[in-house]
Amino acid sequence: MEEDTGALPRKEDFSQWYNEVLWRAEIMDVRYPVKGLYVWYPHGFAIRKRVYGILRGLMDRDHAETLFPLLIPETEFMKEAAHIKGFEDEVYWVTHGGRNELDVPLALRPTSETAIYPMYSLWIRSHTDLPLKLYQIVNTFRYETKHTRPLIRLREITSFKEAHTVHATREEAAVQVETALGLYREFYDRLRVPVIISRRPDWDKFPGADYTMAVDTVMPDGKMLQIGTAHMLGDHFSRTYDITFEDANGERRYAYQTCYGISERSIAATISVHGDDRGLVLPPEVAPIAIVIVPIIVGKRREEVLSAAATVEKDLRNAGFTVKLDDRDMRPGAKYYHWEMRGVPLRVEIGPRDIDANTVVAVTRLGRKITLDRRGVVEGVISVLAEFGEELSQTARQAMADRIAVTDTLEETAEAVKRGVAVVHWCGSKECAEKIEAATDASILGSDIRSDLITVSAGPCIACGGNGTSTLVARTY
Amino acid sequence: MEEDTGALPRKEDFSQWYNEVLWRAEIMDVRYPVKGLYVWYPHGFAIRKRVYGILRGLMDRDHAETLFPLLIPETEFMKEAAHIKGFEDEVYWVTHGGRNELDVPLALRPTSETAIYPMYSLWIRSHTDLPLKLYQIVNTFRYETKHTRPLIRLREITSFKEAHTVHATREEAAVQVETALGLYREFYDRLRVPVIISRRPDWDKFPGADYTMAVDTVMPDGKMLQIGTAHMLGDHFSRTYDITFEDANGERRYAYQTCYGISERSIAATISVHGDDRGLVLPPEVAPIAIVIVPIIVGKRREEVLSAAATVEKDLRNAGFTVKLDDRDMRPGAKYYHWEMRGVPLRVEIGPRDIDANTVVAVTRLGRKITLDRRGVVEGVISVLAEFGEELSQTARQAMADRIAVTDTLEETAEAVKRGVAVVHWCGSKECAEKIEAATDASILGSDIRSDLITVSAGPCIACGGNGTSTLVARTY
Repeated sequence: MEEDTGALPRKEDFSQWYNEVLWRAEIMDVRYPVKGLYVWYPHGFAIRKRVYGILRGLMDRDHAETLFPLLIPETEFMKEAAHIKGFEDEVYWVTHGGRNELDVPLALRPTSETAIYPMYSLWIRSHTDLPLKLYQIVNTFRYETKHTRPLIRLREITSFKEAHTVHATREEAAVQVETALGLYREFYDRLRVPVIISRRPDWDKFPGADYTMAVDTVMPDGKMLQIGTAHMLGDHFSRTYDITFEDANGERRYAYQTCYGISERSIAATISVHGDDRGLVLPPEVAPIAIVIVPIIVGKRREEVLSAAATVEKDLRNAGFTVKLDDRDMRPGAKYYHWEMRGVPLRVEIGPRDIDANTVVAVTRLGRKITLDRRGVVEGVISVLAEFGEELSQTARQAMADRIAVTDTLEETAEAVKRGVAVVHWCGSKECAEKIEAATDASILGSDIRSDLITVSAGPCIACGGNGTSTLVARTY
Repeated sequence: MEEDTGALPRKEDFSQWYNEVLWRAEIMDVRYPVKGLYVWYPHGFAIRKRVYGILRGLMDRDHAETLFPLLIPETEFMKEAAHIKGFEDEVYWVTHGGRNELDVPLALRPTSETAIYPMYSLWIRSHTDLPLKLYQIVNTFRYETKHTRPLIRLREITSFKEAHTVHATREEAAVQVETALGLYREFYDRLRVPVIISRRPDWDKFPGADYTMAVDTVMPDGKMLQIGTAHMLGDHFSRTYDITFEDANGERRYAYQTCYGISERSIAATISVHGDDRGLVLPPEVAPIAIVIVPIIVGKRREEVLSAAATVEKDLRNAGFTVKLDDRDMRPGAKYYHWEMRGVPLRVEIGPRDIDANTVVAVTRLGRKITLDRRGVVEGVISVLAEFGEELSQTARQAMADRIAVTDTLEETAEAVKRGVAVVHWCGSKECAEKIEAATDASILGSDIRSDLITVSAGPCIACGGNGTSTLVARTY
């Protein structure tokens, strides 16, 4: 709707790059007249649709999709003391309907425990109702007073996938947390985004949880972005909302619960991890257009080139690819710029010389150029795109590895967090955490680290010298 | 999660039937603790997913999907005087974030004109940007003071598909209204729901529109349910929100707009039109399970029957059907009851005698019983389901035809609207409309009727005797 002009800031100026790429690649428009609320452009929404299609596919394996109301009555919301304490400064309240003041103010869900669990209390009667695994993809709201940023820190999270499960035993619930982390790992594998999983310190867990496991990735500026969480709720909420079941012996017992969520930060991570100085770089699975065909038109062989390009388009489309034939009347270079900005994984060029040689030229968004045989174009493209996806994974993984440093002192750690994640030994005490955080201007993210890039060990706490275990320290979003 | 027990009220007691079928067939749970807000059960949500998949497919032909914020600042909302006047008693207002009062109250969108059009004003520059056709599927809110009802009259409309288009000329916009009506007709054809399209009287048009076309269906109690609307907005909103474009001659001009919407009333209509005394009857395209296989197990041939049922299940699943093999240890009759309640279009029974005869028995949800050859079971099922769909359309169409009466007097009309729709001649005046409405206890729905069940003509107004044209009169939801 608007032409992009001029150069994109370099990706090393990450914050500027991020803001610019969002509108130049038509992901989000930030000009909506309320702070922290943004508009999805059709191209951004098409990416969202694919990303959430992958997520839905994973959840649908053994969760059922459902939908609960946005509005939560204050009376239900206030029941769970620890929970409300975690959210009380962040909740939007509806107080009026038309010109009337409401009897009971309604909260816009910041997350749905207090909307869903009263219903679970009605639905669950017997051990045969368990496990129950439901999820929904909804808009949620946080009255953010910090600096807001599209896809990352929002007042309306437009795309929150939240799952809520109920189990007969604490052990089963704990296993479900691990299952959820496995699903999330698989999800980010599909997005080619490397992640580190860890257990958040107690003071940073979800309000009302026994413990919180988090999925983080390292952003290009070295800060960590939390892109998924899984919470062990124990029987905390089931006691508040009276979620009980009759076990096989006829005894009534409280259930155990978990919940886990992913938001559009998954898209922020995909954009940020893979993008480059020329714009987006999209993994094939999430690109609304996988392949753009650019006919290289030279004077008198125009019709012949367009016809050959149309044939290639048809072949690729029939093979199931989303293809765009860009036959606009403009220079090929301007077309390259346009589609590179939007992250299209593969460009196929076809000109008179290719026709003569019975070939096409395929150029990946990472700049790899391959000449393909015309007759084998579908097989060629399948293989090039598979390699491209693999290259994205490897490049991203290497970039993350380069930003992880194992450090032994507060000074080393303070240096390391300037460009990425430090892995330190920490004794687990709040006192030492505060010392480490003050000395490094960064946060303790968590222990119980799961990442094949990090070797976990025991060692002396960098603050007090007592027994410690490997812990992540980083600046965060 | 809960067992349904006891008999469903008869469908002729429609209101009771509707309420009961919603929970017995696990569509909506009405026990959420806020009036007018309901919870989608997984089965209901699976139907929603299919219905909206059809709608999305139709829109995606030449609209792009997008997503705008839920919260609209009072300042934007108040700009459009006619529009706000239509909604001021129905808007929910967010006034607090955390413990702070907001500077500008935020409306929960009742519909998104005032959220979208300020952005259109930024996006549209030139005639080459037109036509612009976007849509979104979102939750919208109305502070309903009338009696609320699941899927029909809601405080949170969870599934509002709203399209917003922009055009260079009034004529193009008018054509788009017709195109939208064509898409909606196609949508309801797929749901096997017969519709009548008409032009609403001026006092009943969308606030801010030049005119409103509506899509209605006749419910089992004879009342009309509005299940879609398309509005010609003219240049009304474009003048308020400054949506202009430079035409081919370099002149700046106001654009012309339309908008059109469909809500989960589409699902209420599908359930209500097709359902019967035994529960839901779902068209194959929207049924989460198209076929249930019930093995008829007789003593010693148990394994043989289960194995044959599993083979049929595999064949049907490979052919692309969603199939459920119900091998629970309970009486076949109880299984029939269970799946009939949930509207499964086809039941396939297989027992020892079928194995011996190399057949299976297929029973449609409308009770038609067909013996199919085991080897040709896929072809057989395809054909039976196609006929079943056709039968649903024909039955629904006949039921609607039976409820339409052409009447010539106020008395006849008052009688006719007790059981359905009256088609009368009306002069178009507000005065006569009021007379007709008072005498019939029903509403003037509209003229310019499009329905192949209704022959439109000119004739004397039933209120004043002046020149009139065919007009719908009915009780409405």
